[in-house]
Parts: sequence; structure tokens; C-alpha cells
Amino acid sequence: MTAAHDFGAWMKSIQASVEGALASFLPDAAVVPTRLHEAMRYAVLDGGKRVRPLLVFAAGELFDAPAATLARGAAAVEMIHAYSLVHDDMPCMDDDALRRGKPTVHVQYDEATALLVGDALQSQAFIVLANADAEPARVLQMVRLLGEASGSAGMCGGQAIDLDSVGLKLSLEALEQMHRLKTGALLRASVLLGAWSGKPLDAAEQQALDTYARAIGLAFQVVDDVLDATADSATLGKTAGKDAADNKPTYVSILGLEASRALAEQLRHDAHAALAPFGDKARRLRELADLIVQRQA
Amino acid sequence: MTAAHDFGAWMKSIQASVEGALASFLPDAAVVPTRLHEAMRYAVLDGGKRVRPLLVFAAGELFDAPAATLARGAAAVEMIHAYSLVHDDMPCMDDDALRRGKPTVHVQYDEATALLVGDALQSQAFIVLANADAEPARVLQMVRLLGEASGSAGMCGGQAIDLDSVGLKLSLEALEQMHRLKTGALLRASVLLGAWSGKPLDAAEQQALDTYARAIGLAFQVVDDVLDATADSATLGKTAGKDAADNKPTYVSILGLEASRALAEQLRHDAHAALAPFGDKARRLRELADLIVQRQA
Repeated sequence: MTAAHDFGAWMKSIQASVEGALASFLPDAAVVPTRLHEAMRYAVLDGGKRVRPLLVFAAGELFDAPAATLARGAAAVEMIHAYSLVHDDMPCMDDDALRRGKPTVHVQYDEATALLVGDALQSQAFIVLANADAEPARVLQMVRLLGEASGSAGMCGGQAIDLDSVGLKLSLEALEQMHRLKTGALLRASVLLGAWSGKPLDAAEQQALDTYARAIGLAFQVVDDVLDATADSATLGKTAGKDAADNKPTYVSILGLEASRALAEQLRHDAHAALAPFGDKARRLRELADLIVQRQA
Repeated sequence: MTAAHDFGAWMKSIQASVEGALASFLPDAAVVPTRLHEAMRYAVLDGGKRVRPLLVFAAGELFDAPAATLARGAAAVEMIHAYSLVHDDMPCMDDDALRRGKPTVHVQYDEATALLVGDALQSQAFIVLANADAEPARVLQMVRLLGEASGSAGMCGGQAIDLDSVGLKLSLEALEQMHRLKTGALLRASVLLGAWSGKPLDAAEQQALDTYARAIGLAFQVVDDVLDATADSATLGKTAGKDAADNKPTYVSILGLEASRALAEQLRHDAHAALAPFGDKARRLRELADLIVQRQA
């Protein structure tokens, strides 16, 4: 069995187990309000590469975290991610009709339902995480991590900076700050939730994982920008070329295509370097850094 | 000093202390993203009767809860309440331009900002609560209570049922279920967060407070419907007569005005009865039940 095959099998098994966890942690579509619950499940289930859950489980391997705790952390970050997509796609934000190859929630249902789906998914994420079976002090720290990554110092803050920058010429530093919050914060939370599912982190461990998370977070966005500029909608499962059409600043628009690709490769190297202290236990985190940079969609 | 005066002074002092707590627990408007942070503060500060924070503090008196823990519970429920108003007022929901006598957030700022303000306020509520200074297991239980009250089994679920019932003839039971989730769940959470700020509740205490909370929650909505049908916009600080104009089912449309008023009075009586086991410690909770039924706005 080659290493690549092995990683692929690991991914498939985590993705399947996360799909099961999400299905069980989402409200039953037969329970009132049925339309809301059906739409919540539509927004979350059967879609996406589950990059954040994969990071949770990969980081969990560092400290042999129990699968049940990891499943809650993974489901919680994925619910936050899914809610942000539902709200982002709404007409007052990106006004996107296609997501993960399916009609977006406000198209499939209606705008009011999309708004509530996002709101209820955020609550559900905190419920799922707060019910994790570990020492209360550790679970509480995980709740704080998820909250900070989601709110105005994290994902929502990054989206606000994004809104404010449409049509502006951003510096590379400003673009990096935006993405560090908009997508980086939740990717970082995924890594930290996985690690904290195993044990409380000391300062050195936290620092090493922060460095890793920061590198893959930026790499993720650089590659997103490269793909938006080069791939087609069918491959992406969402509308390609949106950034240029919306006049949004991107790594490609600032650095150009080749320099963006080189930056992604440099960040992949940085991510690997940060994991050195963890030795072989960090294998899945290394492979995920490679996946993030080398993905085609 | 009359009892009424005493209650008024207590309310004013709690309202002032909650305003200070909210101001300190909200992100600084000078911190990036400044527009989002300014809008979050606009949505929360300097407005409303703070009924939910008053309930938190009143319930806290049952078990001599520390003021610092109560301040976090109160700020958290008020942030959830404020976010729900911001999202409710958006064009895809109630499309309201006036709230607490001020332009609504999407009017004062824009729709995308209003969406993010609500999203970020929800995260902030969980951050504020998760940082409460009490035993982790108790704080975690409070986080669960807030999550359940906010999500699809609580407030968001009630709003979804509300959406689904516009234009329908609802039974009294269906109307009650909608309101039990839409407004009742967060009022109940306020009472329970206040009590849990003092100590873990036993089953009998939880049951008594549930009965109280259910009664005032329904009373709150019945009185809201009566006021919407009888008061003017200037007194309410929001657009009056909206329910009839939107063809929404209300207690007044189902029961009529006089029977609605009698129901509110009955619920006030039920709330008082439920508090009997707590004796004089429940004085503020009794007074709040009176306030909720007898308010004019």
C-alpha cells in the first residue's frame, strides 16, 4: 500500500465518520419546525471536502484524542463553516446561486429560512461542543476557542473586512489580515480543537500548532484565489471567476499567478517545519498541508 | 420608601450595571473591523427595557449569586436577544425600519453589516458566558442552556414556526407553542442562568422556575399582542399594528382583547404561585411578573 493510498483511505474513513456524526448531531428533519430542520440538514450534509473536520482528526492524532470528542469538535467547526456559507451566499452578501454543486439555501428554500438556518446552525455548533465528554474545564476552553474563531475577532470580523475592501487596492499585509480572520481563524480552531480533545496544550505545543495553522490558513486562501482564477465552475462546484467579476482583491490580483503558486509552496514548507517537534504523530497534519496546497478544487 | 419605589430603584440600578457590563463585553469600536464593532454596539447599547437581564439578576437573588457571574449571564442573553432583533428586522424577515426608537441596523448601516452584526453577537454571547468565573461544570451547563434556548429547539425554531404560520389560522395551542419557543425559551434561559449563577439547581427548583418562566413567557407575548393592537408607535418605540397588517395570528386575533387581558392576569397569578417555595428571596421575580403584565410599552 503506498503512502498516498493510505492517506486517501484515512480521509475517506474520517469523512464517512464525520458525515455520520453530523447527521446525528443535527436536529431530525421530522421534528417541528420541520422545514428549518430539513434546510439545516440540506446546508450541512452530503457536501464539501470536510477540510476542517479532517484537521480536527489529524490534530487529534498528536495526543491520541478519543474519537467521540473529536467527532463533536469536528461537527461543531463544520456547522460554523456551513452556517457562514449559507449567510455568505445570501443576496445581501455574495448573492451566489450555486454551492457545492447544489442550489444555495436561499434559492432552494427562501431568504428568511437561509437566515434562520445559519443562526440555528451556529447555536447548534456550541450545543454539540458543550456536550463533549471530557473534563469540563477543557471543554469550556474548547467552547472559548470556537467562539473566538467565529466572532468579530475571527471569521465574522474577516468577512466585515472583506466587505469594507471591495473595490479597494489592498496591500499584501491587509489582504493577509483579512484572510487570517476570514478563513484562517476557523482552520486554526480546527487544529486546536483536535489537539485539545486529547489534552490541555502547553505553551510550546500551542505555539507550534499556531504556526502550522497560520501557514495552512494562508495557503488555503492563496490556493483558493489561484483556483478561482484558473478552474471552471463545474470543477469547483461553485461559480468560478467571481472574485475578478466582483473586483475583489486577491493574491493573484496582487502577486500574479506564478508568485501566488510559489507562495503557496513556501507556506506548505513552513507548515511542515512547524510540525517537527511532533515527529511521526503529525503525519496526517503534514499530509493535509500537502492536500490543501495541491488540491485542484 | 414604598415597595414600588424600591422596585423601581432596583431596576434602575440593575439596568445601569448591565449597560456597563454590555459596554465592557462588546468589542471596542476603535478596534478593526471598526464598522462592524460600531454596529454591534449600536445594536445592543442604550436601548430596551433589559427584561432578560432583569430576570437573570432577579433569579440570582434566590441563591445569592455573585454579581460578576450574573453580569455575564445577563450580557449573554441580551446579546442573543439583540442579535435576533437585528436579523428579525431585516428585509427578508419583518422588514422593519424602526426599533427602540432608532433606525434598525440594516437601515443605519446596510444589510450585509446587519447580517454580520447578528452573527458576531451570537458568538460574542457564548464567549462572554464561557468566560464566567464559576466551576467549569456549572458554566458549561449554562452554555448548554443558552445554546438550547437560542437554536432550533428554542428561539430560532419559534421564528421558523412564525414564518410558516403567516396567513394561517392557528389554534391557541399552536400559537402557544410558537411563542414558547420564539420568546419563551430565552426568557426561561434568563431565569435559569440567573439561578445557576448561584448554584446547581435540584429537580424541584428547576421545575418551579420552569413553571414561573413558562407563565411569564406566555404573559409577555399576550401583553405584546395587546399592546400591538392598542398602543401607538411612539409609545412602543417600534411600528405598532404590524401584526394585523402582516396578517399574523395573535392572542388578540384569536381570543379578542378582553379575554387576552384576562389570560395575562391569570398567567401573572400562576407565576406568583410557582414562586411560593422560594419565599421572600423571590420578591424581584414576583415584581418582574407584575411588570411584564402591567407594562404599557
